[in-house]
Amino acid sequence: MSESDSRSRITATPYLCCKDASSAIEFYKAAFGAEETMRIPEPSGKVSHAEVSIEGAAIYISDEYPEINVLSPQTIGGSPVMIVLDTPDVDSLFHKAVAAGATVDRPLQDGFDGALRTGKLIDPYGHRWMVVTERGEIKV
Amino acid sequence: MSESDSRSRITATPYLCCKDASSAIEFYKAAFGAEETMRIPEPSGKVSHAEVSIEGAAIYISDEYPEINVLSPQTIGGSPVMIVLDTPDVDSLFHKAVAAGATVDRPLQDGFDGALRTGKLIDPYGHRWMVVTERGEIKV
Repeated sequence: MSESDSRSRITATPYLCCKDASSAIEFYKAAFGAEETMRIPEPSGKVSHAEVSIEGAAIYISDEYPEINVLSPQTIGGSPVMIVLDTPDVDSLFHKAVAAGATVDRPLQDGFDGALRTGKLIDPYGHRWMVVTERGEIKV
Repeated sequence: MSESDSRSRITATPYLCCKDASSAIEFYKAAFGAEETMRIPEPSGKVSHAEVSIEGAAIYISDEYPEINVLSPQTIGGSPVMIVLDTPDVDSLFHKAVAAGATVDRPLQDGFDGALRTGKLIDPYGHRWMVVTERGEIKV
């Protein structure tokens, strides 16, 4: 990659506010196999910033900070952002997350043309997830 | 990359629900230099699914679908997910977005150790963004 390519690249990372972020991180480990890569705790135990990796996909997490309008889905009453996890094995990820306590919002189903298999989940902290396998990209 | 590496990789893409998604896409083009890469419109003009790329960072966008609880920040009353755009030139991206109509939630500032320069924005559709440059990774 040339230097100019490197300079122009942007990444977009979802930063989730969770009520009780410390417990939420444990849930994401169990549900999605997330690995904790960074945590900046406050003396109170509150998580001001944490980073996890779901098989290479970065997700940032913090507790609520109402004074700067950082609020969880439970406080706001929902979420207008769904996190789409594109994985080679959607069935495995979906069932593991449900076993860990995620709620099924829409069961796994194949798209009309067979190219996509998707399901939707809501986690115990109120965040919304779509899990998807793009079959055209799987190497078998 | 080996086949096993490819099979185990997951990506996380933010899927934003926007009231008037068509206008929101135009805003993201002006604010962040987004390029529209896919749009699945309904006969009514409603956007059931769209994809944009912000210099390589994928963002999905749709209109509201209240019947399946897909609601915008304006309807819910906020967002518990901030989208973090990590870019080599945070000043340029921040000022371009503000010129396009984003609201400054926190002005650009350098972190205490100088490694990060960050600012926070709220777009006209209610989604929250952090723009950041990690100075340690810039090639000059």
